[in-house]
Amino acid sequence: MNNTYGTLFQISTFGESHGLAIGVVIDGCPAGLEIDEVFIQSELSRRRPGQSSIVTQRKEEDTFEILSGVFEGVSTGTPIAIVIRNQDAKSKDYSHIADKFRPSHADYTYSVKYGIRDYRGGGRSSARETAARVAAGAIAKLLLKRVANIEIQAYVSEVGKMKLEKSYQSLDLSLTESNAVRCPDTALAQEMEDYIKQIRKEGDTIGGVVSAVIQNVPVGWGEPVFDKLHAELGKAMLSINAVKGFEYGSGFEGVRMRGSEHNDIFIKENEEVHTKSNHSGGIQGGISNGEDIYFRVAFKPVATTMREQDSLNEEGEAVKVSGKGRHDPCVVPRAVPIVEAMAALVLADFYLRNKNSKLDSIFPY
Amino acid sequence: MNNTYGTLFQISTFGESHGLAIGVVIDGCPAGLEIDEVFIQSELSRRRPGQSSIVTQRKEEDTFEILSGVFEGVSTGTPIAIVIRNQDAKSKDYSHIADKFRPSHADYTYSVKYGIRDYRGGGRSSARETAARVAAGAIAKLLLKRVANIEIQAYVSEVGKMKLEKSYQSLDLSLTESNAVRCPDTALAQEMEDYIKQIRKEGDTIGGVVSAVIQNVPVGWGEPVFDKLHAELGKAMLSINAVKGFEYGSGFEGVRMRGSEHNDIFIKENEEVHTKSNHSGGIQGGISNGEDIYFRVAFKPVATTMREQDSLNEEGEAVKVSGKGRHDPCVVPRAVPIVEAMAALVLADFYLRNKNSKLDSIFPY
Amino acid sequence: MNNTYGTLFQISTFGESHGLAIGVVIDGCPAGLEIDEVFIQSELSRRRPGQSSIVTQRKEEDTFEILSGVFEGVSTGTPIAIVIRNQDAKSKDYSHIADKFRPSHADYTYSVKYGIRDYRGGGRSSARETAARVAAGAIAKLLLKRVANIEIQAYVSEVGKMKLEKSYQSLDLSLTESNAVRCPDTALAQEMEDYIKQIRKEGDTIGGVVSAVIQNVPVGWGEPVFDKLHAELGKAMLSINAVKGFEYGSGFEGVRMRGSEHNDIFIKENEEVHTKSNHSGGIQGGISNGEDIYFRVAFKPVATTMREQDSLNEEGEAVKVSGKGRHDPCVVPRAVPIVEAMAALVLADFYLRNKNSKLDSIFPY
Amino acid sequence: MNNTYGTLFQISTFGESHGLAIGVVIDGCPAGLEIDEVFIQSELSRRRPGQSSIVTQRKEEDTFEILSGVFEGVSTGTPIAIVIRNQDAKSKDYSHIADKFRPSHADYTYSVKYGIRDYRGGGRSSARETAARVAAGAIAKLLLKRVANIEIQAYVSEVGKMKLEKSYQSLDLSLTESNAVRCPDTALAQEMEDYIKQIRKEGDTIGGVVSAVIQNVPVGWGEPVFDKLHAELGKAMLSINAVKGFEYGSGFEGVRMRGSEHNDIFIKENEEVHTKSNHSGGIQGGISNGEDIYFRVAFKPVATTMREQDSLNEEGEAVKVSGKGRHDPCVVPRAVPIVEAMAALVLADFYLRNKNSKLDSIFPY
Repeated sequence: MNNTYGTLFQISTFGESHGLAIGVVIDGCPAGLEIDEVFIQSELSRRRPGQSSIVTQRKEEDTFEILSGVFEGVSTGTPIAIVIRNQDAKSKDYSHIADKFRPSHADYTYSVKYGIRDYRGGGRSSARETAARVAAGAIAKLLLKRVANIEIQAYVSEVGKMKLEKSYQSLDLSLTESNAVRCPDTALAQEMEDYIKQIRKEGDTIGGVVSAVIQNVPVGWGEPVFDKLHAELGKAMLSINAVKGFEYGSGFEGVRMRGSEHNDIFIKENEEVHTKSNHSGGIQGGISNGEDIYFRVAFKPVATTMREQDSLNEEGEAVKVSGKGRHDPCVVPRAVPIVEAMAALVLADFYLRNKNSKLDSIFPY
Repeated sequence: MNNTYGTLFQISTFGESHGLAIGVVIDGCPAGLEIDEVFIQSELSRRRPGQSSIVTQRKEEDTFEILSGVFEGVSTGTPIAIVIRNQDAKSKDYSHIADKFRPSHADYTYSVKYGIRDYRGGGRSSARETAARVAAGAIAKLLLKRVANIEIQAYVSEVGKMKLEKSYQSLDLSLTESNAVRCPDTALAQEMEDYIKQIRKEGDTIGGVVSAVIQNVPVGWGEPVFDKLHAELGKAMLSINAVKGFEYGSGFEGVRMRGSEHNDIFIKENEEVHTKSNHSGGIQGGISNGEDIYFRVAFKPVATTMREQDSLNEEGEAVKVSGKGRHDPCVVPRAVPIVEAMAALVLADFYLRNKNSKLDSIFPY
Repeated sequence: MNNTYGTLFQISTFGESHGLAIGVVIDGCPAGLEIDEVFIQSELSRRRPGQSSIVTQRKEEDTFEILSGVFEGVSTGTPIAIVIRNQDAKSKDYSHIADKFRPSHADYTYSVKYGIRDYRGGGRSSARETAARVAAGAIAKLLLKRVANIEIQAYVSEVGKMKLEKSYQSLDLSLTESNAVRCPDTALAQEMEDYIKQIRKEGDTIGGVVSAVIQNVPVGWGEPVFDKLHAELGKAMLSINAVKGFEYGSGFEGVRMRGSEHNDIFIKENEEVHTKSNHSGGIQGGISNGEDIYFRVAFKPVATTMREQDSLNEEGEAVKVSGKGRHDPCVVPRAVPIVEAMAALVLADFYLRNKNSKLDSIFPY
Repeated sequence: MNNTYGTLFQISTFGESHGLAIGVVIDGCPAGLEIDEVFIQSELSRRRPGQSSIVTQRKEEDTFEILSGVFEGVSTGTPIAIVIRNQDAKSKDYSHIADKFRPSHADYTYSVKYGIRDYRGGGRSSARETAARVAAGAIAKLLLKRVANIEIQAYVSEVGKMKLEKSYQSLDLSLTESNAVRCPDTALAQEMEDYIKQIRKEGDTIGGVVSAVIQNVPVGWGEPVFDKLHAELGKAMLSINAVKGFEYGSGFEGVRMRGSEHNDIFIKENEEVHTKSNHSGGIQGGISNGEDIYFRVAFKPVATTMREQDSLNEEGEAVKVSGKGRHDPCVVPRAVPIVEAMAALVLADFYLRNKNSKLDSIFPY
């Protein structure tokens, strides 16, 4: 249960940063979906280390192997197991911290919780685990594209104090992939890139924000009362390494508004029900209302810096630690495809769940 | 599955705002816990309507009946069913909107999703459902108090643009219940109360923020990788009606910090491992590290206003709607016990789940 | 989790034999189903005590109240909570065994497992809990009738050494309800009834077998690999009090057959695929194949006899125990509706689950 | 959810008979367990094809690779992924039946359910999937051995009409592995082996029964009311390919007994509570009572025979089919380790679940 996400479109990930492999089993993908392996690889490549000069230089091609569940290129309704072998696992980089607790990492909490810890590269707590999510998320994207032409687009909107103030409607999101930072405002992207390089040079790290917008979600997805669509999106995002906050629609800004200005008035457009404004962020009562879903995710600065820090070891003695591995100075550029993948997994699950909401509904999309 | 929360300490709520009753079944409460009914009632009373002049005037005493699972005042390990009868259900207040979609309510999405809708008072989508959560949360609190002396304290920190800038450490949280707003800064509380009364007079509503701090959580609670402690807290909070955002520890502010200043340095105090700062918010790698857990929850302004608004009816025709029922001008004062209840439910579940993390662990607290 | 059955059509039962009430919450019933309360009551009446001279004389009308989830007679897609108040709870009948372990009851195991035990009437371990299942099962039957005209018919086929040797095809199952034993062979039913009366007179009890046949299940229900249709049927039946065995199709007899005679040959009839024989019991690879599903359930003799027996008390001292409450001399007549209810719950769940097996399937029944 | 078994000690299997690999992810194994790979291999070898002259001659060594969750020979509390590559997958053996429905196989039901079918060797419906269960079951056995010295022993007790009439107490179960049939009565084993060889020569197959006994299970395992220990055992056994029936304790024979003779009288032995007889099969009220747990599992004759049979193809046309692959004439010898593995998985789950039954219980075994 602990390493599983979703109820009907369900994924279970496994693997440690410096073990033999990481991977995922997808249980619940309906039969009949064309599994585009080129697309899966392209998604993994957006997340992989070494893709640009502002990310970690660990060399992982993140090539994958589908062990089951696909026959002649099509899903069969049985579990789809995907394995990604680790290749550039320099475990020696970690022997010096085998018994030390790195500040703001999971070393201490894992040690207490489990009494044993695979210290190589953070083991299970490493963000390397998210590669498995991206592979599964790619299949979820294929499903969503097929059943409702759903588009999920994330992008970097903040790095440190640098903030993209424009709304997603006024941006050309096709430019997101045009630069290493994955910010669709290319001028700001250049500034962010320079800033991240400067931060790296100083042996330090910096936080950021990933924004996302989801289009074409039909009305009715999301389940009251605990599994509201935005509650699951929030959980999914907060389960990504380094995330500290989530807001959707009007978010934290919305608390300052009055009901009379915050309410989204229903109107009719092209014989469809829509809303004039969209402070609701496309979700009302936890259920999609057909408008765009948009949200923001806050990432803290990466904990591993090249600077020496005070800490403790497992015996509780004072020690010094500093990063020797290969690390990201800022996590948000690589987080963009992870945010998209998690959003896709949330939606694929609600797509299947929504099929059971009422009798006599003909498969509606 | 849809109306159930938790995996080992599991609750299932039921009931509509203007139906016969709402209630909850708690499955998984260990045997041997003293069930203090006076405490449960006091928690319900903190949430109930009509408690002060700045909340809805619907008259519900929210008295409850425990139907099962308790024998001679002690839990038996079997399901604890609690029923709260609705008393002041003025369904007639809603007949005028039976076929209308109230803006920013769940009327439209429920209608499309289910093809049928209990329009009386919002039916299942009403925040009245949270009374069941508060009853269950009270039992979770009793459990947490008993096993680890855990304290959960929430309070109102923002109403509209009025913000309590002090950290929880510099506040006397025992003052939270001393005023109708539930803000521990009594001077600011008075201003907030006046402001809410003004808003109500104008027939409008306003948003707010609830902050919370949890103390004495042992190290090791929370489950990687999807069910991180903060991810479940986030989901639980986002599942509360009207919530638009969640952040913990350094939150959205943390993105502007550098790793070297954000990292929490481990130190030894009284032979225990602690951290100097606590930007991590008491959680590292999704697992509690023994420090205080703190977070913030954003609530939008209540959707029901007394002002007339444009909308559509089920036939898609333009109509006017305005509130006739009894509603809150600002939801945060009554949200305080709900936030605490959901936090308690999250923690009770992780308490039980953590018992299985390692072999040979003697029941550790 | 412990008191919950099903994944998409999910029920959670609660309540003790001599507590205030027993009940059930159904989570996952699709919206739009007409909830026929007269039918629910008639199902409860088939199970209720005091219905004839060969069952326990406890006086319970088993009237029920639906607290939620139904609006104007139709399911709304929200949880349906049903409560049945206990009326004739003579707890004093049990004070003499408060600290004694009745042989072959759950007294000892509950005491050790929970450290506390509601001894009144067996508490949670009493078969009274199955009334909640029958109420939920009635709604599942309504759903199955509506979506595929499914018929579930159980009947008594063995009492002690008396055995109905005819196959279900050669019986008129409409006669099942014509006698107190619920055996469709009325002559044998009379013999069984006389035998049960004799057993009761002797202060003893006797076991029996309930057979069941399910007709009109569409092809494709059941989920590989663990949740095979017959595996869930087996679990559901074995979860009924006093059940010791389950077999379907050729069952234990089938082990003596050769593959060449056991195999069910596919043929075409009226443009539909069918099988010549049906040793498979309507299930192949864990999935329904469109033929009749049939199975048999073994019930042990009721543990409570009027005879004095040796036992131990909670201090481990030798004591004498004998039944003083009101009990069934043979459980199978009242077990018939319980077997049907559990079968209905299994099938309702697989109906919903099967909707997700393939893409592009139009709601098929 | 569909390919997952267990709630706290949870396994998810994947893989097709003639795909690249089969495998399993174990989520929930507590940290600190020594993972004995030699033992895992020995269990797989008891199940593997080609092990003797009376089983299928497909050549699979069933060597496995642990991809995650184990560090320096010890479980870390993270998911344990195990992969077994398929080596002797002669898919060409199946091209002649690619569009034909083999009688009493899952070909037809899978085709209708999924609209697509991996016909090679039965794909997902093949008993080859059980190798993954045996690997996971081996780890469950290691856990049970460690925490409570639990012994699980299965053996063949019937082949066709040949039946081992002795009770398990009067047998030397250490002889089970001394012969190819896995029957501890070596004389009868020889007769069974000769009989199976004769059946094979005739191009036919035959059914059988596997009996099992579990010793040293502490009091208290199993969860009322749906997840009774025997209900889960039943489901687990019925989920094994070709199983048609399950009974425990007195089973179907018990229905003919009277309560006064069936009841198990509590006695005190060596300061422990025991029962004189054990018709309950070690389980009362769904919870282990400390006595031996024993049960019987019925297996039908293997569906694939070498004889030509009538059938239909996907177009509904009459065709002839006959086995060309390599198959077992009788499945029970290889089913013995599968039955043990499933029993171990059931118990490992209840071990973890029982930890949460009461407060203040010190880890009790």
